[in-house]
Amino acid sequence: MWISELAERSGVPVATVKFYLRERLLPPGEPVSATRSAYDESHLRRLRLIRALTDVAGLPLGVVGRVLDAVDDPDRSLRAVLGAAHSALSRSDPPAGPDACRRVDRLLRQRRWKVSPSSPTRAALARALEAYGVLGRQLPDETLEVYAETAHAVATVDLASVPTTTREEAVERAVIGTLLAEPVLLALRRLAHEDVSARAFGARRTRRR
Amino acid sequence: MWISELAERSGVPVATVKFYLRERLLPPGEPVSATRSAYDESHLRRLRLIRALTDVAGLPLGVVGRVLDAVDDPDRSLRAVLGAAHSALSRSDPPAGPDACRRVDRLLRQRRWKVSPSSPTRAALARALEAYGVLGRQLPDETLEVYAETAHAVATVDLASVPTTTREEAVERAVIGTLLAEPVLLALRRLAHEDVSARAFGARRTRRR
Repeated sequence: MWISELAERSGVPVATVKFYLRERLLPPGEPVSATRSAYDESHLRRLRLIRALTDVAGLPLGVVGRVLDAVDDPDRSLRAVLGAAHSALSRSDPPAGPDACRRVDRLLRQRRWKVSPSSPTRAALARALEAYGVLGRQLPDETLEVYAETAHAVATVDLASVPTTTREEAVERAVIGTLLAEPVLLALRRLAHEDVSARAFGARRTRRR
Repeated sequence: MWISELAERSGVPVATVKFYLRERLLPPGEPVSATRSAYDESHLRRLRLIRALTDVAGLPLGVVGRVLDAVDDPDRSLRAVLGAAHSALSRSDPPAGPDACRRVDRLLRQRRWKVSPSSPTRAALARALEAYGVLGRQLPDETLEVYAETAHAVATVDLASVPTTTREEAVERAVIGTLLAEPVLLALRRLAHEDVSARAFGARRTRRR
């Protein structure tokens, strides 16, 4: 297909496709004449992946380039590629305090979760736990356990649908599956809070201060 | 206690406490002399709630005022008060399309969740579901079902710890329980994705494109 069809089918404007070609994020097409190249399904797949990484994940192009390098490196297992993609989704700064980091390490060790020691998501969790301290509170261990349990159940469902036909599709689905579902899960939890509150406090009245 | 102690114990600067008094978010203290008033534990509780609503929930003061009015209105049940607080946490605009709204209505009806028809969180969920369409995808019904199931399990644990001693504490805990836990849950899910990926794709290699 010509670049115009590639743009149309991917929903990415021609100017942006040319930009991705110049930036080496998209491999060149097959030259047909001095001024025209032909593109195929692999270019379409790659464009969709770039779009998921930029538009949905909001990653800067430098990070997108590194994820794509991992996808293209035949010596890296799909596990390593997905690990690189997952790591790219979290920011590692600002660092969290040692207590919160130890709590995260302990949780992951007890659950035997295979998470890279350098994953920035560890720090993201530690920072989220630290936020309770600002209000003089702490998330109880039992609640954290239930959260971890349900998070794993959700992740298992999410990744059950990740196809292993091409590495690009696997990465695209993993990124989309991680990010697009986040607002869905948060909205559902808020609705569930409304339901649980309505049932618990519907009849009773509580003492006024 | 004097205003200085109130500020110190709540972690809110004296100038901010005075501002809340002027804005009628915080009830006046007991006048002791022409220039001094005494404050008690109820003021401390109220300040903590204001802080949770502004700092954690990021609500504008106008919305905070409406939530506090609900807390102070003896004719409103705790259910109605918590409903007002939950609704304040979601924005209702931009509106979602009719298909996504119908999908949300159907889900809530099937699960018999008690959610106010005017809750802005309905629209938030509909918009989150619509986001898949941008990438030409749709969240499968089976996945949405699992999400709803786990969201309800999480909400049940969250609200099991909401005390009913005072309405202020109940609202504060509901708001904190909803908001502070969100980044915790998202980080745990991402870590679980890393674990599930590592287990599923650790050994196998997949066909390159």
